[in-house]
Amino acid sequence: MSFRALTYATNGAPSAVVRLTQHAGLAAPSAGTANVKWLLSPVNPADVNVIQGVYPVKAKTKLGEEWVGGNEGVAQITHISASDASGLKEGDWVIPAVPQLGTWRGRANLPVDALVKVPESLGLLRAAGATVNPPTALLMLESFLPKDTERWVLQTTANSGVGEAVVQIAKRMGVKSVNFVRDPSKPFGDGKTVEQRLKDLGADEVLPYSALSDSATKKRLKGLGARLMLNALSGPDATNIAKLLGPQSNMVSYGAMSMQPLSLPTGLFIFNDLVSRGFWMHKWYERSERAEREALLSRIAELRLEEPAGRVVKVRQDTEVVKEIFEGGKTKTFLEFDDVD
Amino acid sequence: MSFRALTYATNGAPSAVVRLTQHAGLAAPSAGTANVKWLLSPVNPADVNVIQGVYPVKAKTKLGEEWVGGNEGVAQITHISASDASGLKEGDWVIPAVPQLGTWRGRANLPVDALVKVPESLGLLRAAGATVNPPTALLMLESFLPKDTERWVLQTTANSGVGEAVVQIAKRMGVKSVNFVRDPSKPFGDGKTVEQRLKDLGADEVLPYSALSDSATKKRLKGLGARLMLNALSGPDATNIAKLLGPQSNMVSYGAMSMQPLSLPTGLFIFNDLVSRGFWMHKWYERSERAEREALLSRIAELRLEEPAGRVVKVRQDTEVVKEIFEGGKTKTFLEFDDVD
Repeated sequence: MSFRALTYATNGAPSAVVRLTQHAGLAAPSAGTANVKWLLSPVNPADVNVIQGVYPVKAKTKLGEEWVGGNEGVAQITHISASDASGLKEGDWVIPAVPQLGTWRGRANLPVDALVKVPESLGLLRAAGATVNPPTALLMLESFLPKDTERWVLQTTANSGVGEAVVQIAKRMGVKSVNFVRDPSKPFGDGKTVEQRLKDLGADEVLPYSALSDSATKKRLKGLGARLMLNALSGPDATNIAKLLGPQSNMVSYGAMSMQPLSLPTGLFIFNDLVSRGFWMHKWYERSERAEREALLSRIAELRLEEPAGRVVKVRQDTEVVKEIFEGGKTKTFLEFDDVD
Repeated sequence: MSFRALTYATNGAPSAVVRLTQHAGLAAPSAGTANVKWLLSPVNPADVNVIQGVYPVKAKTKLGEEWVGGNEGVAQITHISASDASGLKEGDWVIPAVPQLGTWRGRANLPVDALVKVPESLGLLRAAGATVNPPTALLMLESFLPKDTERWVLQTTANSGVGEAVVQIAKRMGVKSVNFVRDPSKPFGDGKTVEQRLKDLGADEVLPYSALSDSATKKRLKGLGARLMLNALSGPDATNIAKLLGPQSNMVSYGAMSMQPLSLPTGLFIFNDLVSRGFWMHKWYERSERAEREALLSRIAELRLEEPAGRVVKVRQDTEVVKEIFEGGKTKTFLEFDDVD
């Protein structure tokens, strides 16, 4: 069965360089590989950065002469040797455990070591985004939150995929969250605002970055003695949130949406014992065994997080589909490739 | 025996607010205290910041209505109860183990818990500066240098008190050092340059910050894979040095001489596993017992570091002495108080 893919020959703006291509069906898998059908693949900001050529990890998968986009997705194993030792079998749902597999395609032949099984209880939408965002949230909270009796986490970009997972996982851990977003009153959908969405997910407070210029708010937040800040923003707003942390705190960065550096008064490090570090899910997968990866994803499934909000774009032969995907507004997009007869 | 002290009633420029005052002799020490004679006390940049009122720790010691300057120094115990349980005895050399004792004075009555014995083998100049700089250098190197086979440390402000101690202790640990200073060709004394002084102490490389704009130098230094940077500068030069670190590195800050924040690309944290933290000797003393403090200072004595370069100003009755101390150029100053008959 031939299949379609979203591919590109040169770096640039996705809507200009990405095109829909068609490819011959797969041969039977060789030893140590499996054939899969991709069921649903998200379009993440980092995917766009890879296509633009500005991400520190480059595309790794080619179809013919062109790169295949996409880092995440959920696939179903269609063909694997009965003697395969990985424990994977036909019909299993799998997600990537290594970066840049090129998930924006109907079918693929992949090394079994690059795949990790996920429970179907996750559902397609959650499974499609399970490689990066929820595990990032879970591991950051577990690894860097001091064991106080009353625990608070402060976070930037709370309406991002990681941000929504942080809100929900913190709630389940009994950790209170202060969540900063650009505009809490922005419509989210279903008549709700971003603030209402985050509160429904378990947020204790939702505040705009502009609240960081209000001295009464700052004083109140500093009084919480929060010892963990999760940062995917950087720039001046992140600096102002870091100043609200209590002594002996961790600031963990996993992004820099402001495209500005992380600038902190040196005194926060010396006198307040702040430790600033980063977290990258990519590295965790690199150093983990299959059993650890599967155990992590089982735990993610047990958390029963809300489905990510977004839209599914069916990728069929259509001259406008690339434009629809990359110029279709700010809602998170998931790709579903149709089968080619 | 009455004594003199350098005191001030209000915050401001030291040469404007500090004055030489005379005080009545000490009574016999009460239980849990000792009378001491200060032998030599340095004038550190942080002392000036305290007098200016811009340091996060405030002056803590008054004589009458005025604050006494000075955070470091070496004293000799002149009078202590024979039944004192601290292990200290008359004739012992002691240094402060708590901040802001007010060391710029001829004599003092002090709690024994605030004092820690130092070996006389340190000599007066080294003992006078033993509370902060050499232990800061030793503990930062020991605590935050990964255990590679070939180890490098990069440091700012290498000609500071801590910087010179880092050069020497690194050399003794078999760790190579790249040492940044404003101007390596600046005269140091004895016909030597700053570069020669640091090389004589064991520096492997001495470079001006301006070398950070040379791409060949940057490439060479990045190739070292250094995993520790010690920062007392911050600002753009510190940023440029941080970019030379290898993966999984520590950046430890203990000062910010540039008076600018520490600004780092977030990618260094996420993709290069940089951890940025601070070190403050003050906090180590706060959480340590007498036996730990004395063990640390014995180890400092055993390192036989070079004496700090500086000048000794004899503080006797002289209307110009305050001006001499605070406007006497950039050489490190040590104060020696004469006895008052």
